Amino acid sequence: MPCEFRFRRRVQFYETDAAGLVHFSWYFRYMEEAEHALWREAGLSIHPPDGEVGFPRVSTSFEFHSALRFEQEFDVHLRVTAMTKKSIRYTCVLTDGDTKIATGTLVIVCVRRRANEPMTAVEIPPEIAARLQVAPDR
Amino acid sequence: MPCEFRFRRRVQFYETDAAGLVHFSWYFRYMEEAEHALWREAGLSIHPPDGEVGFPRVSTSFEFHSALRFEQEFDVHLRVTAMTKKSIRYTCVLTDGDTKIATGTLVIVCVRRRANEPMTAVEIPPEIAARLQVAPDR
Amino acid sequence: MPCEFRFRRRVQFYETDAAGLVHFSWYFRYMEEAEHALWREAGLSIHPPDGEVGFPRVSTSFEFHSALRFEQEFDVHLRVTAMTKKSIRYTCVLTDGDTKIATGTLVIVCVRRRANEPMTAVEIPPEIAARLQVAPDR
Amino acid sequence: MPCEFRFRRRVQFYETDAAGLVHFSWYFRYMEEAEHALWREAGLSIHPPDGEVGFPRVSTSFEFHSALRFEQEFDVHLRVTAMTKKSIRYTCVLTDGDTKIATGTLVIVCVRRRANEPMTAVEIPPEIAARLQVAPDR
Repeated sequence: MPCEFRFRRRVQFYETDAAGLVHFSWYFRYMEEAEHALWREAGLSIHPPDGEVGFPRVSTSFEFHSALRFEQEFDVHLRVTAMTKKSIRYTCVLTDGDTKIATGTLVIVCVRRRANEPMTAVEIPPEIAARLQVAPDR
Repeated sequence: MPCEFRFRRRVQFYETDAAGLVHFSWYFRYMEEAEHALWREAGLSIHPPDGEVGFPRVSTSFEFHSALRFEQEFDVHLRVTAMTKKSIRYTCVLTDGDTKIATGTLVIVCVRRRANEPMTAVEIPPEIAARLQVAPDR
Repeated sequence: MPCEFRFRRRVQFYETDAAGLVHFSWYFRYMEEAEHALWREAGLSIHPPDGEVGFPRVSTSFEFHSALRFEQEFDVHLRVTAMTKKSIRYTCVLTDGDTKIATGTLVIVCVRRRANEPMTAVEIPPEIAARLQVAPDR
Repeated sequence: MPCEFRFRRRVQFYETDAAGLVHFSWYFRYMEEAEHALWREAGLSIHPPDGEVGFPRVSTSFEFHSALRFEQEFDVHLRVTAMTKKSIRYTCVLTDGDTKIATGTLVIVCVRRRANEPMTAVEIPPEIAARLQVAPDR
C-alpha cells in the first residue's frame, strides 16, 4: 500500500518559456505525473478505459522557490497527506539536490463517471481505497 | 457552405520557449483552432458530445518561414483543398501583414467512434459533407 | 490605470483531456492570459524584448467548482487585489453565465532579468507601478 | 558519434484529448525529446545557456497510423537521415511492439542566436558537426 512516490525527471524544451524558465503551469503536470505513477505502483489506473468513477481535481496550489531551466534534472516527491471517504489530498515537493524548487498541494474527489451529466461526489470504491494510504508525518 | 476560415490571434506567453519564439508544436494547434472554427461556421462541431463519428488526423506538416514572438499578432487562414468520401484535406497559411510565417497541411479521416475499439474509416455522414466544400483554386 | 480585466474565451480541443474536460493545468494559463491582457490595457508588456525586469510567479492556486468542456464559452475576470513595492497579487474568477467554474490566485514578484544568474527581488519600476492599481473591494 | 536515439515512454494524462487519444501536436514533442536526447548522448546541448547558434525548425511532418491512449507505453526511434553544412534532417518512428504508430520527419537549420534580430542560416560549427553523423540506410 504505497503512500508516496518519487521520480527524477529532466526539463524538456517545450516546457520552457521566453523567460528561459519552465512555465509555471508545468509544475501541476509534474505533480500529476507523480500521482498517476503512485496509482500504478498501487496496481491502479486513475482513468481505466471503462472505469465507473473518476477523480476530478477540487483544488491545487504551488509555491515557487527556485526556477527550473532547460535540461535541468530534478526530483518530484509526492505524498498522500489525507484521505476521507470521498477525497484524497497530496503534497508534492520538487527539489534539485539541496535546492528546494517548489511545493504543491492537490485535492481530488471521487465522482461517478457519466458522460454529459453533472458530477456528484461518491465514496471511493473499497478496492481503490484499500490500495492507498496516508504517509506518516515527517 | 464555408470552404475556408480566417482569424487573427495573438501569441500567448505559454506558447513561447526558451529560444524566445513560439514552439513549433503550437502551429499545429493554431491550424486546428481554425479547423474547428470553420466547422462551427458550418453549423457543426467536430466533436459533439454524443457524435457517432470522429475525425482523427491522418497526416500533417508545416514549413516554417519566419518566427513568432510573445504578443505578436498574426493571421491564420485555413482552406479546404480536397474532400473524398471519407477524408478532408486542408491547407493553412500563417501571415503577419506581408510576412509569410508558415504553411501547413492536414488530412483527417472519418471513423466510427466506439470507445476501446480499433478505428475503421467510414463515409463522412451526408449532413456533415453537405455543409463543407472545397475552396476554389487561387 | 486599470485594476481588472475581463475576457470571454472558448475551450479549444487541445485543452481537453481523456476525461472529456479541460485539464486543470489550463486554468493557470487562462488566468495568465488575462494578466497579460491587463498589462497590455495598461500600456505595458510583462515581457518586453529588452526589459530589465521580469515577473516570475511566487505562488498560485485554483479551486475548481464546475467542469469546462470542448467548445464551451466562459468568462475570465482578473482583479489586482494587492500591490507591495516588489509584488502584485491577483484574484481570478471563471464563470459561464451564473455558473461559477473556478477561482484562482496568483502572486508575482519583480526581479532583475539577467540571463543565467540567480534572481533577486527588486522594486517594481515606477513606470510600471504607476500604471496598475488595486481593485476596490467588492 | 551517435546517428540515432531510441527511448521508451509512457503517455501522460495531459497529453490526451477529449477523443481519449494523444493529441496529434504531442507527436512533434515526442520527436523533439528524442532529438535533444540524441544531442546529449553526443555530448551536446541543442540550447546551451550562452550558445552562439540556435537550431530553429524549418519543416516537419507526421503520418499517423495508430492511436495512443493514456498510460500506453511506446518506443520513439529517431535517426539522422541527412546533414548539409547548415541543416540536419531526422526521421522518427513511433512503435508499440509490432504496431507502427506514427512516422515523422524534421529538418532543422543552424542560425546565429541574436536576440531581436532576423535569423540567418550559418554553417553548423565544426565542434557540433563532428559529433553527429548520418545513420546508415536500413
